[in-house]
Amino acid sequence: MRKHTTRPLVLPVAPTRGRLRPLGLDEVRITGGFWARRRHINATATLDHCRDWMERVGWIGNFRAAVEGRVHRDRRGREFADSDVYKLLEAMAWEAAGQGPGGTLDAEIAALTDTIAPAQEPDGYLNTAFGRPGQQPRYSDLEWGHELYCYGHLIQAGVAQMRAGGEGELAKIARRAADHVCATFGPGGIEAVCGHPEIEPALVELARVTGEQRYLDQAALFVDRRGHGTLADPEFGRAYYQDDIPVREATVLRGHAVRALYLAAGAVDVAVETGDDELLAAVVRQWEATVARRTYLTGGMGSHHRDEAFGDDFVLPADRAYSETCAGVASVMLGWRLLLATGEPRYADLAERTLFNVVATSPSEDGRAFFYANTLHRRRRGTVPTADAESPRAEAGLRAPWFAVSCCPTNVARTLALLPSYLATTDDQGLQLHQYADAEITTSLTGGHGVALRVRTDYPSAGRVTVQIDRTPDHPWTLSLRVPEWTAGGTTWLVDLDGTRRPVPPGTAQVTRRFRPGDEIRLELPMAPRWITPDPRIDAVRGTAAVQRGPLVYCAESVDLPGGHEVDAVRVDTSVAPQDGPGTGNSVLVAGELTAQSDSPWPYAPPADPMTTEAADRTHIALVPYHSWANRGPSTMRVWLPMTEH
Amino acid sequence: MRKHTTRPLVLPVAPTRGRLRPLGLDEVRITGGFWARRRHINATATLDHCRDWMERVGWIGNFRAAVEGRVHRDRRGREFADSDVYKLLEAMAWEAAGQGPGGTLDAEIAALTDTIAPAQEPDGYLNTAFGRPGQQPRYSDLEWGHELYCYGHLIQAGVAQMRAGGEGELAKIARRAADHVCATFGPGGIEAVCGHPEIEPALVELARVTGEQRYLDQAALFVDRRGHGTLADPEFGRAYYQDDIPVREATVLRGHAVRALYLAAGAVDVAVETGDDELLAAVVRQWEATVARRTYLTGGMGSHHRDEAFGDDFVLPADRAYSETCAGVASVMLGWRLLLATGEPRYADLAERTLFNVVATSPSEDGRAFFYANTLHRRRRGTVPTADAESPRAEAGLRAPWFAVSCCPTNVARTLALLPSYLATTDDQGLQLHQYADAEITTSLTGGHGVALRVRTDYPSAGRVTVQIDRTPDHPWTLSLRVPEWTAGGTTWLVDLDGTRRPVPPGTAQVTRRFRPGDEIRLELPMAPRWITPDPRIDAVRGTAAVQRGPLVYCAESVDLPGGHEVDAVRVDTSVAPQDGPGTGNSVLVAGELTAQSDSPWPYAPPADPMTTEAADRTHIALVPYHSWANRGPSTMRVWLPMTEH
Repeated sequence: MRKHTTRPLVLPVAPTRGRLRPLGLDEVRITGGFWARRRHINATATLDHCRDWMERVGWIGNFRAAVEGRVHRDRRGREFADSDVYKLLEAMAWEAAGQGPGGTLDAEIAALTDTIAPAQEPDGYLNTAFGRPGQQPRYSDLEWGHELYCYGHLIQAGVAQMRAGGEGELAKIARRAADHVCATFGPGGIEAVCGHPEIEPALVELARVTGEQRYLDQAALFVDRRGHGTLADPEFGRAYYQDDIPVREATVLRGHAVRALYLAAGAVDVAVETGDDELLAAVVRQWEATVARRTYLTGGMGSHHRDEAFGDDFVLPADRAYSETCAGVASVMLGWRLLLATGEPRYADLAERTLFNVVATSPSEDGRAFFYANTLHRRRRGTVPTADAESPRAEAGLRAPWFAVSCCPTNVARTLALLPSYLATTDDQGLQLHQYADAEITTSLTGGHGVALRVRTDYPSAGRVTVQIDRTPDHPWTLSLRVPEWTAGGTTWLVDLDGTRRPVPPGTAQVTRRFRPGDEIRLELPMAPRWITPDPRIDAVRGTAAVQRGPLVYCAESVDLPGGHEVDAVRVDTSVAPQDGPGTGNSVLVAGELTAQSDSPWPYAPPADPMTTEAADRTHIALVPYHSWANRGPSTMRVWLPMTEH
Repeated sequence: MRKHTTRPLVLPVAPTRGRLRPLGLDEVRITGGFWARRRHINATATLDHCRDWMERVGWIGNFRAAVEGRVHRDRRGREFADSDVYKLLEAMAWEAAGQGPGGTLDAEIAALTDTIAPAQEPDGYLNTAFGRPGQQPRYSDLEWGHELYCYGHLIQAGVAQMRAGGEGELAKIARRAADHVCATFGPGGIEAVCGHPEIEPALVELARVTGEQRYLDQAALFVDRRGHGTLADPEFGRAYYQDDIPVREATVLRGHAVRALYLAAGAVDVAVETGDDELLAAVVRQWEATVARRTYLTGGMGSHHRDEAFGDDFVLPADRAYSETCAGVASVMLGWRLLLATGEPRYADLAERTLFNVVATSPSEDGRAFFYANTLHRRRRGTVPTADAESPRAEAGLRAPWFAVSCCPTNVARTLALLPSYLATTDDQGLQLHQYADAEITTSLTGGHGVALRVRTDYPSAGRVTVQIDRTPDHPWTLSLRVPEWTAGGTTWLVDLDGTRRPVPPGTAQVTRRFRPGDEIRLELPMAPRWITPDPRIDAVRGTAAVQRGPLVYCAESVDLPGGHEVDAVRVDTSVAPQDGPGTGNSVLVAGELTAQSDSPWPYAPPADPMTTEAADRTHIALVPYHSWANRGPSTMRVWLPMTEH
């Protein structure tokens, strides 16, 4: 295992091989626009919010209770509550790294770490739910106990600290835990896996940061072990935790969506580091099938409420969409790893869609409430969650401050904290821009030649992206710009230094030249809102259409409808193109009608007896970006709108 | 409380008031046809099958373990496993009563009762999951413990024995348990309800058979207590166990479907016995809203897998239909009570639909395997359940011999055993036929005047129902025949004694006259298969149609498709009427095409880019009765078929 000594950057993911090289959080700064606002709220509100809630509900206190010998009596929260403290630490570490020295976050990290540290046992074991007097024994419930899952998040937090500034106490705790895992689950140890994958990508990243081969070996062992039925067969079936089919034999992602996606991310990491092209190809195949048949328009994954799982192919109900926020986070993690490994823009395409329509949808405007599940159709107005109680995961209809199972808020927090790292990469030819935001990028191209550029854009409100070269080597290199798949219906223009414009198809637009400081390259993406219709095999949304504008999926929300109508009254006329709404509010207007449907005693009848329909009012209907819904009180909402001709 | 001393009949449900009077199992005999076959298999195979499985998985053994002081260690099955032993006893008791003296069932009932009896504690408490050393204390988990639910089924078994032949040991156990419930949960006792309603209808029926007012009072107390939040708020919300809104204030059934329906049945029983018209009206209102907005074409109820619950209005996905068999049973129970109370044929209409398309769908042709959930669309071929292991409830795709939660097999068994009681009623005007089967009915009209009639029909294969009067009072009376709601698209003929025919609309056809032995009245129901389309608010099946023939819902099954197609390739042309298939197999042919859809990398696109569709083969597609599907090996299936024009 080769340690990444040549580039000691703040890299969330740092493969030693692969098509593209990531940039560190010290190399990319988001300076304005959509994501800057989100990141500011994350840094100034969400991190504190999560810490305060975890103090309040006792999840941080669990570590104190463990040290004080009363955890068997006093422990609070679900079996995996430790993991959210670790995810918060990871978020703080990336955020601190991005802000640079002088912030208060380092002190907060140290304080939280001091709470955790004494709970670690001499052999490295660390979990507040198992193993102490009066608790279940260690590793007695690998199916549901989440011990290795918790280590995974602990290790990711430790890696963040190592990448950000060296081996602090948190990093040491993480390494001790990882050593314990290798000793306990390595060759000759317990031959099993954890019911919830997550340790796999964590161990690979620890191997990358430390150069220690055994962490990689252990991760590879966990990936290979899965799918052979070492876990008990639960009522959901072993597919729930991907223990039904070995990773390299599976053809599609299945079972619990977050589990499936974390595992796939770890498998890519193992494949890349071990040069296992067969394993990489297997995950690519699964990704393709999953995107073609098991993914929502928003990029959301997982359509079952019961087991938080992928459904069968084309089972994508809008009104029972689960689309867990964490599955969105995990999908972005997987896509990033596949992008780095292959260089193919399709992975950045899906990541963009998921970031804007799932990850950005979860937090409220103030960063203090969250969606756990991200439905595409809400039929009943939600009830306002109580501010001082944990909420149910999936039924609230409005964002809630905290959940009994509260994996999502800290997952959003760590994703926003490391988001700048997703914007760009380098390779031997030059620099690639994958996601568009107002940003400053300073890095080195091959050979150590410094490069600096500024990206100016109002994306996703506007389609113009200007890249200004501030610093450049004195030899030719290639600037690559992703042209999103969603531009397929329009024309994207690449505007060169001299103002010449050429249309570029979806994929990658490249400019290769000897740049000079001050040079500007511009991309003009077609931002007209457009109708989208679904594959006819998605039964749940047959006869409907949705609107997308740029990467943003839109929705109708009842607060925007006249006459007190709920969204189920909306019928849209797709023969009329959607148009931008007035003002700068990013709303879109579509032609349609509002119909009040009267009840019949029995909702099925011969086609000759059409259902009674009240006179329809022809009107324009305002749609808003899906990520912004439910910020104006209880409402009903739908993304897929029935067409008038149906 | 007035005891039903005047008519000591074998009555499963015996209200002391109400519009119609039920007949006993000793008054109605099903002599041939669809239900006779089902009942024969039930009596000769299913009852033994259930008993053998409950011995094998230890649920019967739990009672022995309790007596021998080792139940804390050896108990098997879920917390409600006792209830299935009781449901089997109830089924055996009704079956024995229908068969009359001389069968072997009485000995089997006695043997099972002897196993249970010693486990009852001196104060009447009886449950193998709670209350003994090493177990959780009695009533320490009313939300999930199911203790009162188990009593409910015990009491229903005891009532069956009382109605069938007097107070045997089983009846005594049940009465002791009921007395214990009244002492423990009555005024001054524990002010709570059970997480799973069921005790309510059981206690009312016990009051009816014994004449003891306190059982009715206790049932009324349980009904009134619910909806006030005495149970903890679970993650599903208190609506899960109907503890969110008082019964008389609720406007629709909600939460766990079986719980909601059992509670509604008990509320009707209480309302009828106490003359509480407000409570009865509340349940009628809930039934109406539920049927208009939350019921599948099959009569199935419950669309959530996660909590086995009703969804919001019009959330009726075909591919994720839960439609639990037990909810079908419970819906028939509720409908029967509402029919007896009001005399309105709409309740028998829904019961017929549910009996043929849910209750009859669950058991396999040999009566030794069952569907727990009854999906309306199966996208993947199922896997064959192992014959010697319990199966998952809802995912198998094929009927399974037993489940870890195995409430459905015994519920089907008791329903088939008491089915003859659903066929007919009497009132002061005469006799009413509600369900059609080859049957012999012998009862008394008002004043004790004996009447006997024979029903001859091949229903539901054929639409001709002939009623022959074998014995009749010498004065005029009224024979009423239900004309099903599904006849609305065709013409039903009533053929009088002299051969005169008159069309009769859906509802009730009546013939009032001084009958003579040998008289025949005939009903001719329109049996042409017909297209049915759904209310446009049911998003999940927009743009599709289904076929019904008589009361039977039809489906396409992949084993009937040419060229190895799966059912998702089917598109139907609803401009062509469906027609009867060849032979007598009850198949139906529809015009349509089979299209193989090729994948695109992303299943959403602008409407201008139609999805690639392979050339379609115009063909006829054979449909089969839904209840018969999955009897020919693994297959895919769908009830709602996309229309070619969509």
